[in-house]
Amino acid sequence: MDYQQLIEEVYQEVQAENLKGKVADYIPEIGNVNPDQFGIALVDLKGNVYGVGDHQVPFSIQSISKVHTLTMVFNVFNSKLWSRVNVEPSGDPFNSIAQLEYEKGIPRNPFINAGALVITDALCSKFENPIERISDFINELAGDTCVKINPEVQASEKNHGERNTALAYFLKSFKNFNNPIDEVLDVYFSHCAMEMSCVDLAKSFSFLANDGYSIFADRQILTESQSRRVNALMLTCGFYDEAGEFAFKVGLPGKSGVGGGVAAVMPHKFSIAVWSPELNEKGNSVKAIRALELLTDKLAFSLF
Amino acid sequence: MDYQQLIEEVYQEVQAENLKGKVADYIPEIGNVNPDQFGIALVDLKGNVYGVGDHQVPFSIQSISKVHTLTMVFNVFNSKLWSRVNVEPSGDPFNSIAQLEYEKGIPRNPFINAGALVITDALCSKFENPIERISDFINELAGDTCVKINPEVQASEKNHGERNTALAYFLKSFKNFNNPIDEVLDVYFSHCAMEMSCVDLAKSFSFLANDGYSIFADRQILTESQSRRVNALMLTCGFYDEAGEFAFKVGLPGKSGVGGGVAAVMPHKFSIAVWSPELNEKGNSVKAIRALELLTDKLAFSLF
Amino acid sequence: MDYQQLIEEVYQEVQAENLKGKVADYIPEIGNVNPDQFGIALVDLKGNVYGVGDHQVPFSIQSISKVHTLTMVFNVFNSKLWSRVNVEPSGDPFNSIAQLEYEKGIPRNPFINAGALVITDALCSKFENPIERISDFINELAGDTCVKINPEVQASEKNHGERNTALAYFLKSFKNFNNPIDEVLDVYFSHCAMEMSCVDLAKSFSFLANDGYSIFADRQILTESQSRRVNALMLTCGFYDEAGEFAFKVGLPGKSGVGGGVAAVMPHKFSIAVWSPELNEKGNSVKAIRALELLTDKLAFSLF
Amino acid sequence: MDYQQLIEEVYQEVQAENLKGKVADYIPEIGNVNPDQFGIALVDLKGNVYGVGDHQVPFSIQSISKVHTLTMVFNVFNSKLWSRVNVEPSGDPFNSIAQLEYEKGIPRNPFINAGALVITDALCSKFENPIERISDFINELAGDTCVKINPEVQASEKNHGERNTALAYFLKSFKNFNNPIDEVLDVYFSHCAMEMSCVDLAKSFSFLANDGYSIFADRQILTESQSRRVNALMLTCGFYDEAGEFAFKVGLPGKSGVGGGVAAVMPHKFSIAVWSPELNEKGNSVKAIRALELLTDKLAFSLF
Repeated sequence: MDYQQLIEEVYQEVQAENLKGKVADYIPEIGNVNPDQFGIALVDLKGNVYGVGDHQVPFSIQSISKVHTLTMVFNVFNSKLWSRVNVEPSGDPFNSIAQLEYEKGIPRNPFINAGALVITDALCSKFENPIERISDFINELAGDTCVKINPEVQASEKNHGERNTALAYFLKSFKNFNNPIDEVLDVYFSHCAMEMSCVDLAKSFSFLANDGYSIFADRQILTESQSRRVNALMLTCGFYDEAGEFAFKVGLPGKSGVGGGVAAVMPHKFSIAVWSPELNEKGNSVKAIRALELLTDKLAFSLF
Repeated sequence: MDYQQLIEEVYQEVQAENLKGKVADYIPEIGNVNPDQFGIALVDLKGNVYGVGDHQVPFSIQSISKVHTLTMVFNVFNSKLWSRVNVEPSGDPFNSIAQLEYEKGIPRNPFINAGALVITDALCSKFENPIERISDFINELAGDTCVKINPEVQASEKNHGERNTALAYFLKSFKNFNNPIDEVLDVYFSHCAMEMSCVDLAKSFSFLANDGYSIFADRQILTESQSRRVNALMLTCGFYDEAGEFAFKVGLPGKSGVGGGVAAVMPHKFSIAVWSPELNEKGNSVKAIRALELLTDKLAFSLF
Repeated sequence: MDYQQLIEEVYQEVQAENLKGKVADYIPEIGNVNPDQFGIALVDLKGNVYGVGDHQVPFSIQSISKVHTLTMVFNVFNSKLWSRVNVEPSGDPFNSIAQLEYEKGIPRNPFINAGALVITDALCSKFENPIERISDFINELAGDTCVKINPEVQASEKNHGERNTALAYFLKSFKNFNNPIDEVLDVYFSHCAMEMSCVDLAKSFSFLANDGYSIFADRQILTESQSRRVNALMLTCGFYDEAGEFAFKVGLPGKSGVGGGVAAVMPHKFSIAVWSPELNEKGNSVKAIRALELLTDKLAFSLF
Repeated sequence: MDYQQLIEEVYQEVQAENLKGKVADYIPEIGNVNPDQFGIALVDLKGNVYGVGDHQVPFSIQSISKVHTLTMVFNVFNSKLWSRVNVEPSGDPFNSIAQLEYEKGIPRNPFINAGALVITDALCSKFENPIERISDFINELAGDTCVKINPEVQASEKNHGERNTALAYFLKSFKNFNNPIDEVLDVYFSHCAMEMSCVDLAKSFSFLANDGYSIFADRQILTESQSRRVNALMLTCGFYDEAGEFAFKVGLPGKSGVGGGVAAVMPHKFSIAVWSPELNEKGNSVKAIRALELLTDKLAFSLF
């Protein structure tokens, strides 16, 4: 398979379709990016990197970082984690609080905001200097010092963080939150404000295509079994209330962010990151999703 | 891979664990089966059949038949179907009506009861003698005249069918139901009352492991793309509000029924059917799920 | 208090305001009435009748009949009734089914559709010829043979009755429904299709202003205590998800119907019926509600 | 009517019934009160005060203070208030957040916690030193310097205030909150921590029985129309998800608090306060509700 040719074809076809969406505007710093940017990077099991378009431009990875933090915590707490957060798809928007009330403070999964806050809280229980540790971890996965926290985005997230703060207090009211809320939110807003390019992002997801082993870090990041489970979670829960649609159309485990990025893996084949800022009404990048759909069609395989 | 040895090992280990559940009791005919029965059948891509335990005993396949009816309708209506039924996981019990109200009569997916009723309604729009047609279709897939409709189960489903009837009328109030309700319910209760053995069930799912081509029917049942999509749907929605858990633990596309059966596929490898009547609190067979978990662990691969 | 002058003033002022709404269109027979009709009838404790506008024109009383059927059943089953139906306001639209699911088949109150179906079911358990008995009862309350069932409306209700049928089957699935669904629905659609004028409707509500004693029937219909409780129920639940607004603005116990009628009582003073077909978005008559608001303002008293 | 004899009879009968409930335990300071205390105070329109039992013992009025703060704000903002908070019964527990999400940040009514927070926020927008102003206002209504804020209760409310804090942040995320959250919560926890006796509480509610005029403050507190509306709100929303039951059994506008107090009014007759710490499962005082039920039965009138 000539991956370079493949992603170039996909890139051209998606560009030709001239798809439109809407850049996220809940914080100004995200809203101001050039909406026409579009990049794809693919990393195969040997560590070869293929790229097209704006694949080297750093962008705000936002919720994609939840896969990295989940990985850090999964490694430490293992199955104990699942008493604090469930593994079921949500069907509700990512920041819904109603479900959390009905289910008595146990978030549906680690990728909706409430679940990610629990993960970040667990991370704060384990690590001193958690922000530094997250950056270090992602850098290690990518084999490069690539992660930057955008201070304007971080500040803006904080200034518009009422709903996440509400979720944190609500979790605390159910005793599912152990650290000071402000500290955890600071870490949360920091890792959501991280910036990486498609290339580095695809590299940082490579271990999930490789049964938990990172060729860039040169070590086993998760056990094979844990790695499989993270992939399963991404497939069923990685795209908010569009998870089924994504599994249906694309069929790869992946995670999206409101910055317009999507990172995905084809287990035992490759990891891939696609980025374009314009989003559909569910909050997922229009071009990135289309690109991945075309790619799996062209490859004539997906998970299924 | 010696599949016969594999499933025998799995069978022994599960039996040794002495797992307990509760046989479904919503209709007496299901409640009266011998709860200790347990069988596994696996069919590889060449059509070789492997079996252990009660793999040749017919049992009530119940909701597993929803995969067969979806396949029949998908083939006919293709993408038009998705204006009438969504492809998102539900997170709610299989017979919930609240979600249907909030989402204005469009069921979350074709495997919850409301969605399966829409599928059966579509099937009634297309085929004369739909019950006969479903039996014929499954027999063809299994390469054998194997399907029997248990008249006591069918009658009992009908007598306890208030909630499904409520769902049908509710769908009709949203104009998402075209045929007379009694006719559609008759077909629905008939296909839920079908009985097959693990062997025949695994054979009838074989095309989903083989990009849509059935070695037993000797024809392309679904396109490769459609076949992938059915698998994606099973993975995200095949186990009601335990879909995420099943994907997480097992990682295979599959569908369960309250009769205690589970049919699943490992794409490009095999299809498998496992049956044991005792259910967990989510309504899925305790032993069947455990068997599939062990099997994917032993194989050290799943989808992911 | 000169009631005739009062209601004439109210009538004039409301007409001058030229309020607009939308005639119910869920069945053609209701949608085709002349939308400009408007009538008020008031009956004092001595049985004096005051009227203005179209107060003698029969109209479809629809859900207002639920007060009559509740009265019949309350008299018979007394407090046993409240194990089958609750007395809490709903906050949801009158035909919602989600709440019924969450609360396991016990409707919130006797005036939402699910609750009224339980009441009609109880009535069918008690009375032979229930339709006749309801008519006889209302005629007795009004001191006149006034009730007519409009056969077109009845047939049309039935033809558009999918949601009510769904509610009935759903109730039955929770064992909160004892009679054949078709029979109960026939009775239900019949009493919703009853036609009466404002005058007769106000007379039929007179006993609720008089501690349960009907001056027209010349007998105690409900005990004083029961009568108070029906009034309390009307106040908290008589206007669907606008009950609070009506209590807030008008402050009288009352019941509305989608035909545009409202019947209300000022305990120990009078009963009143107002009718005008155009509805607000909550399904309550725009002019009738405004008239009652003006009337209680002019009287400078309400319940409160 | 000999009110003193009446409340003594009621007191004796309730005591004889030996009703049991459970003292609120969400904060220790409330949980430690002597559960056997029971007092009734009634104030007639002339300002005569009748009392029995522990009617002069101060207790934590908790949510009853929401009537006082609503009154302060209603007077200032009048109808503009109702764009920020609705007037419909909730049907959900007092601290539910799900409804707030579905209804996009507009609380159902001013007496559930979310609504009371909006009221307190409005109060903070209007008044400097809001805590002092609330105390002054209640003292004026009671004609006595009676209000004390219990500092342990206040501190404990704050320490257990995660859910109220979550509600406040959630309101802010919908732009329905204007002041710093900590400041508003301080005011909120302060007025919930106020202590008064039945006598003073009944006096402070007297204006609501008297068309808005307080005989103790010797001035019009609310217009007659506003006073009626506060009563209507108490009737439909004053007892959380037991509002319908209370209206049904008692039929008086009233407000309960988890300290075990209930304040109610019989318009144009009297105001009354009853206190006993043991609560039913809905969070309302078992003895207080029973006392009011007996009282309206003995008087053979309620609102209805």
